[in-house]
Amino acid sequence: MTLSPTERSTIRRGAARARTDRADLHAILDAGLVCHLGVQIDGSPRVLPTAYGRDGDTLYAHGSTGARSLREAAEEPAVCVAVTLVDGIVYARSLFHHSVNYRSAVIHARARAVTDPDETWRALQVITDHLAPGSWEHARHPNRKELAATAVIAVDLGEASVKVRDGGAVDEPEDVEAATAWAGVLPLRWSWGEPEPAPDLPPGAEVPRHVRGRGVR
Amino acid sequence: MTLSPTERSTIRRGAARARTDRADLHAILDAGLVCHLGVQIDGSPRVLPTAYGRDGDTLYAHGSTGARSLREAAEEPAVCVAVTLVDGIVYARSLFHHSVNYRSAVIHARARAVTDPDETWRALQVITDHLAPGSWEHARHPNRKELAATAVIAVDLGEASVKVRDGGAVDEPEDVEAATAWAGVLPLRWSWGEPEPAPDLPPGAEVPRHVRGRGVR
Repeated sequence: MTLSPTERSTIRRGAARARTDRADLHAILDAGLVCHLGVQIDGSPRVLPTAYGRDGDTLYAHGSTGARSLREAAEEPAVCVAVTLVDGIVYARSLFHHSVNYRSAVIHARARAVTDPDETWRALQVITDHLAPGSWEHARHPNRKELAATAVIAVDLGEASVKVRDGGAVDEPEDVEAATAWAGVLPLRWSWGEPEPAPDLPPGAEVPRHVRGRGVR
Repeated sequence: MTLSPTERSTIRRGAARARTDRADLHAILDAGLVCHLGVQIDGSPRVLPTAYGRDGDTLYAHGSTGARSLREAAEEPAVCVAVTLVDGIVYARSLFHHSVNYRSAVIHARARAVTDPDETWRALQVITDHLAPGSWEHARHPNRKELAATAVIAVDLGEASVKVRDGGAVDEPEDVEAATAWAGVLPLRWSWGEPEPAPDLPPGAEVPRHVRGRGVR
C-alpha cells in the first residue's frame, strides 16, 4: 500500500530519499519513542514532545486533561506529527556534503478528541504497548478518576511524508581525488541500560522479563 | 541568568519539572543532535526535523535555499523550536503513573533569515561544530556556489521553556502497599558505533581523532 501523495506531503527536496510504502511509515512510527506534535495556539506554532502509540493507520497521543496543547490540538483544524530517528552522522570531504542518516515520518492531519470510552481504553493500551510493552498486562489499570484526568487524541495517518537517508558520504569527484579529508559514517546507537528498581519495592523483587528483556527497535 | 517567563513559555502542567536557569536551556541544546522546527505553512502547522547549532543565545539552522519550510520559517512571524532528549522509561505500579524521563527545551521566537556573509559563515561553523565537531578544521570549507545554495535562519533563545523529568516512579501509596507490580526506571543510553570509512578513501587512511574520539553529551 502506498502513501497518498498530496501537495504538502509530496517531498521536493531530496526526492530520492522519499519512501512511498506505508510499511516504511509504520516501521518508523513503531521504532520511535516520542513524537513532536505541531499545533497552532494563539496564532503561533507550538511543538509539543509527547508519547504516542499506533493502531493500524491511527496514531494516538495522550496527556492530562489540564494540558492546554493537547486540548487545543483536538480543537484545531490541523496538526502535524513528526517522528525522527537519527541513525548516524555522515562525514564528507566537504562541509557542504556533511549530512545526517535518519528516518523521518511527518504526518499532516486533523486531530480528533477521543471521547468514546471503548476507544479511549483501546488507545491507552496502544500507547502503553508502545511506550512500555508488557506493562498493560503487569501494572494496575487506570481507574475512573485517572481516566477522567486523561485526554486522548487520534491522528489519522492517511497523509504522510516518509524520508530516509542512509549510506555513506556523497562527495564531489575533485574532493575524493584530493584525498585531504576523511569520509564515512559514525553510526548512532541506542540501547537500554541496567534497570534501576524503585527503592521501596519489597526485598528480593525481581525485574520482570518485559523490562529486563526489552528489545531495541 | 534566568529564562524570561511569558504567557506561552510559562509551564503550567508539571510545574515542578520546570527549570528556569538559562544554563539548563543551553545544556539541553548542546546535548541534542537535531531539533524540531515548527512553522505555519498555508495555514497548517508544519514540523521540520533539522540540524542546528547554538552561539550564545542564538540558535542557527540551515537548509537548502530550495527548501520551502526553511524559507517560509524566515518569512513567518513566529516559529517554535523543540529539542527533546529521552533519558529513560519510568515503570510505575499503575499505568497512570508510567512516565518518561526526559530533558525538553521549547523555544518561541521569530526566525530571522541570515543574509550577512560574515554571520552566515559564523553560523555554518556553529552548526558544524554542533553536528560534527572537528570537521570545520578538517574538511573542505564551502565555496561560493555551495554558500549560495545554503539558507540559514537565526532564532533568538530569549523566550523558552525548559522541562526536565528525572528520578523514579511516583506511585499511589496503596499501589506501593499492594506490591503487585514492579517499579523503576529503564534508562535509555546512546553511543557512537564503530566508524564506517568510505570505500573510496586512499588505502590505509586512518579515522581521524575527532571522529574516533567523539564523546557523547
